Amino acid sequence: MNEAPGVLSIVGLGPGGPQWLTSEAQEALARASDLVGYAPYLERVERREGQRRHASDNRVEMERARLALELAARGRAVALVSGGDPGVFAMAAAVFEAVERGDRAWAGLDIRVLPGVSAMQAAAARLGAPLGHDFCAISLSDNLKPWAILERRLRAAAQADFVIALYNPASRARPAQIHQAFAILRALKSGDTPVAFARAVGRADERILVATLASADPAIADMSTLVLIGSSQTRFAPSGARERPWMYTPRSHGGEK
Amino acid sequence: MNEAPGVLSIVGLGPGGPQWLTSEAQEALARASDLVGYAPYLERVERREGQRRHASDNRVEMERARLALELAARGRAVALVSGGDPGVFAMAAAVFEAVERGDRAWAGLDIRVLPGVSAMQAAAARLGAPLGHDFCAISLSDNLKPWAILERRLRAAAQADFVIALYNPASRARPAQIHQAFAILRALKSGDTPVAFARAVGRADERILVATLASADPAIADMSTLVLIGSSQTRFAPSGARERPWMYTPRSHGGEK
Repeated sequence: MNEAPGVLSIVGLGPGGPQWLTSEAQEALARASDLVGYAPYLERVERREGQRRHASDNRVEMERARLALELAARGRAVALVSGGDPGVFAMAAAVFEAVERGDRAWAGLDIRVLPGVSAMQAAAARLGAPLGHDFCAISLSDNLKPWAILERRLRAAAQADFVIALYNPASRARPAQIHQAFAILRALKSGDTPVAFARAVGRADERILVATLASADPAIADMSTLVLIGSSQTRFAPSGARERPWMYTPRSHGGEK
Repeated sequence: MNEAPGVLSIVGLGPGGPQWLTSEAQEALARASDLVGYAPYLERVERREGQRRHASDNRVEMERARLALELAARGRAVALVSGGDPGVFAMAAAVFEAVERGDRAWAGLDIRVLPGVSAMQAAAARLGAPLGHDFCAISLSDNLKPWAILERRLRAAAQADFVIALYNPASRARPAQIHQAFAILRALKSGDTPVAFARAVGRADERILVATLASADPAIADMSTLVLIGSSQTRFAPSGARERPWMYTPRSHGGEK
């Protein structure tokens, strides 16, 4: 059954379990004739009779995007699944790159991006409200941009006093990168700044740790960890109901009412 | 029926219609004995027998947070509803501010933040993938921070070459603010930079407009508009299937593969 042929839906599964899936995403997954995605993400999607699955490795984003476009161009109803939000450091950008560089027919396809909860939002929800005020999101993935640009962005983020969300903090190719990032931020921000490491949020092996910028050990961040570094206003507030304090950033900037 | 007494869930409804609600949020809304929120957000929640509704004005975030905490402290199962993601420029930070300043018993409450799709993500999904690479989110709401801080953040965001999401671009109190923001960014960024105004995304009156930084008229932004300003890498790509081009930011930074 192919209710909506020739459609490519880029579907955000959210982080972790099924609790953060939107109803729009659920419907697109149910309607699809073909599911395309990185194997562990496909595993998170309920199996349905008659759907074809095309699992791929994590390293081949562009190949995966092209396969999804090819299938849609052949009249299939394709769901390309992505963890988190496909629009945030994920598959949607790869698809539009493929469209621009690829087969001209692809530019005429019906492509839909279905947003989802991104890792920083799930991490923030567990912690309290660290993203309650101005923030930035930076991917430390080193194969996609030169270190000089990353360094410039980290310095500017500190100067702007943004709350900073670091995605992909530990790369296999350059494990030192998260240490270099912390060194830059430590030179520019107070040692008291609240910091959090949120690993595998929403999964069975979820682990969340809070610290200060001075005391934090960046070595604990792996590829499943989202790192949050507070602004000058971000605070810990004691919680009587749980082990860790709340971490939040007030809506107003210090010195103001 | 009060399955989980003495709980405060801060629930993200997502922007626009019900399609972006998560299943976790749906369950919390169904279980609540009391719903608290800004009246138009409460209107978006399905009515259920026996649930009490406490609607308030938009201006009284702290009062609303305190009412929700008070009800939870009296053993009610409270859902405090928020548009978008309650953790992003929304109610969660107000709740933790109220907890820290208020009744000591509040610190012992079971408080849960339920993330949702935020306005910038819904806007990005409609546009293509403008948040595909490093970005920042800045609220122009002027009553919560001095203009000097906003100006510093806009300059740093331009220097960092972040994609920039502007929330609350047009304040009733200072309508000139979005014009000042554009003036700062125009002095620091290329006039060709893709810009988008995404109004009421997901609602019947949704309206999306793309332009360049040089040609854009910031006067069209109102309080329901999310403004996106690209990085140096953000591009338009022609779409054969719709009127507007796609707007996206490639995953890799220019000059790199």
